[in-house]
Amino acid sequence: MRIDRTALADLATGAAFLGSGGGGDPYYSQLLGEAELARVDSFEVVPLDSLADDALVVPCGWIGAPTVSVEKLPSGREALAGLRRLEQEIGRPIDAVLPIEIGGGNGLAPLVSAARLGVPVVDADGMGRAFPESQMAIFNIHGLSACPSVLTAACGSLNVIETDDNLTHERVARGLSVALGGIAHMVEYPLSGRQAKDHAIGGSVSAAIAAGAAIRLARASGDDPFEALYAALRASGLYPFAGEIFDGKIVDLERETRGGFSVGRVVIESFGGGDRMDLEFQNENLIARRNGEVVAMVPDLITVMDRETADSITTERLKYGQRVKIVGAAAPAMLREAQALKFVGPAAFGFGDAYRPIEELNGWTQA
Amino acid sequence: MRIDRTALADLATGAAFLGSGGGGDPYYSQLLGEAELARVDSFEVVPLDSLADDALVVPCGWIGAPTVSVEKLPSGREALAGLRRLEQEIGRPIDAVLPIEIGGGNGLAPLVSAARLGVPVVDADGMGRAFPESQMAIFNIHGLSACPSVLTAACGSLNVIETDDNLTHERVARGLSVALGGIAHMVEYPLSGRQAKDHAIGGSVSAAIAAGAAIRLARASGDDPFEALYAALRASGLYPFAGEIFDGKIVDLERETRGGFSVGRVVIESFGGGDRMDLEFQNENLIARRNGEVVAMVPDLITVMDRETADSITTERLKYGQRVKIVGAAAPAMLREAQALKFVGPAAFGFGDAYRPIEELNGWTQA
Repeated sequence: MRIDRTALADLATGAAFLGSGGGGDPYYSQLLGEAELARVDSFEVVPLDSLADDALVVPCGWIGAPTVSVEKLPSGREALAGLRRLEQEIGRPIDAVLPIEIGGGNGLAPLVSAARLGVPVVDADGMGRAFPESQMAIFNIHGLSACPSVLTAACGSLNVIETDDNLTHERVARGLSVALGGIAHMVEYPLSGRQAKDHAIGGSVSAAIAAGAAIRLARASGDDPFEALYAALRASGLYPFAGEIFDGKIVDLERETRGGFSVGRVVIESFGGGDRMDLEFQNENLIARRNGEVVAMVPDLITVMDRETADSITTERLKYGQRVKIVGAAAPAMLREAQALKFVGPAAFGFGDAYRPIEELNGWTQA
Repeated sequence: MRIDRTALADLATGAAFLGSGGGGDPYYSQLLGEAELARVDSFEVVPLDSLADDALVVPCGWIGAPTVSVEKLPSGREALAGLRRLEQEIGRPIDAVLPIEIGGGNGLAPLVSAARLGVPVVDADGMGRAFPESQMAIFNIHGLSACPSVLTAACGSLNVIETDDNLTHERVARGLSVALGGIAHMVEYPLSGRQAKDHAIGGSVSAAIAAGAAIRLARASGDDPFEALYAALRASGLYPFAGEIFDGKIVDLERETRGGFSVGRVVIESFGGGDRMDLEFQNENLIARRNGEVVAMVPDLITVMDRETADSITTERLKYGQRVKIVGAAAPAMLREAQALKFVGPAAFGFGDAYRPIEELNGWTQA
């Protein structure tokens, strides 16, 4: 599959939704992608099953607070420097790159990195959405090591990290991202082709493109972009349920940048004023309560979207007064397994509620 | 020169004084050194001028808040793991190790690291005392790069750091030390033998041993250990002036662990109650004011010592009510050059006062 300017824009739209509020605003990644498309004709995306078992396949993306990423520009050399250094660490060239998370800007950023390195991007990612912490990747859930990883920053700093466990790795990388100004590029969880095929969440790049295209085409033809999005998500096979969980206006917002994250809560009131939704987020939206009752929780997707344009609004872009729809979607099946819920379920974020699937909480049945 | 158990104890005593309150309490390093002496017969220390020009010579030591180091024990594998990794980075074996700073525990710690690696320690260091930040090393002052450096922590984390400049390197290493629990081992400023000979502060290990021996012998013979210390410092050639700048009791103490440092101030009152001394510290004692007038300032040495035993008291060991003498000493000449004062003079620590030598402030003339 080749990604041209239109597909890039669709990927940005789709990744913004799949980010569940996080992963960084895709707009900058899209601009950087467009600039790169002036140099290369298109970006190459290959299916997971095309990888040789002994290939070296490397997830990458940005780590840090999205609130910082909208103000502090990258130097443009971070990703390539990190990938080259990982090749040096492992002693062989990288064969393909994949997004560590499909959500937000991180769903697009590897396209440019891969083009610079001269390798394709794999149609897969490590989270099936966006999550705030590195150990929430499916590769950690399945017991693979994040190391050696390479963290690079705009100031030219390059750090090779080796830790015994992935939780320490996250703590080290987070500390570094804070020390280096709040945002850094990370190459982590180096995989063999076999490991990528066994563990990555396949098809997520094309699912994001399809979701974005559905919104674009519905807008052009005057159809409802939300319904088009839900249909595209369900059709992808990765996100079998999707739908609106609230409609209203943002009436309260608390947000701070703390410990390298953008953390807070937002309250949305229905237009009649009778109902309210409370969302809590740590980079990503984590839990949604309607009139005090939980209606969606991690790892299921919760995205705030502009109710007129169907643009996804990342947590750092939330503003008082925005008129929004809150859209939920079922997480990919791999993220709902018991082992996965330990790392990406409500308890992993400090919530007392046991995980319940979004379709059950909302009484959705397969369309 | 071979370091046996007695010389190790003398080095601990001398390094504690040269630490100017910082560098970490030498007691733990001494215990670790004694344990190592059960395995090796003695530690080998070689003079700077014995190094081949093309030797690989590596400064190392601990980075972090001394307040943490007294509570959190090392795993014991940090230093060797870091040195081995640096060899791998540079692609050749290390020929000798030196203390990044002679002050405090860091003056002793490299003895054990070197013995494990099977190489000698050089009779030299990078600070001629202890300083709180990595870019305060003479190697940075003289324009050498701290990188590649390797930072290792008790949890098993290993980090190779490469930065364009040494100030960013300090920021990254500090952020890492905080993320890894407040204390970590660092191998930095890898040098050729030629560079070590041109830039290191030679003779500081033997000066520390001589200072410690002087105190030990004076105690044994009933002489004044303070006068013995001053004489030994002057005789070393590195610290040409030394003497008492205050005598009294600690009546006030503020200390907090902030940004990876132990930061605070201490007030000492004379026994008659008529005079007071104010000391400010960031790991190390930085400036001493007697009745409001500056009487000693960085890079000159300021150490709080027990007035009965002549034990040096590091800043994390200061307590209300301690009866102390405040002892000052002239810094090695290399630290007083204009280029050095930019990095280790009062302005580098945020003080408005211009640097004035301790002998001038106190009207000391050469003995």
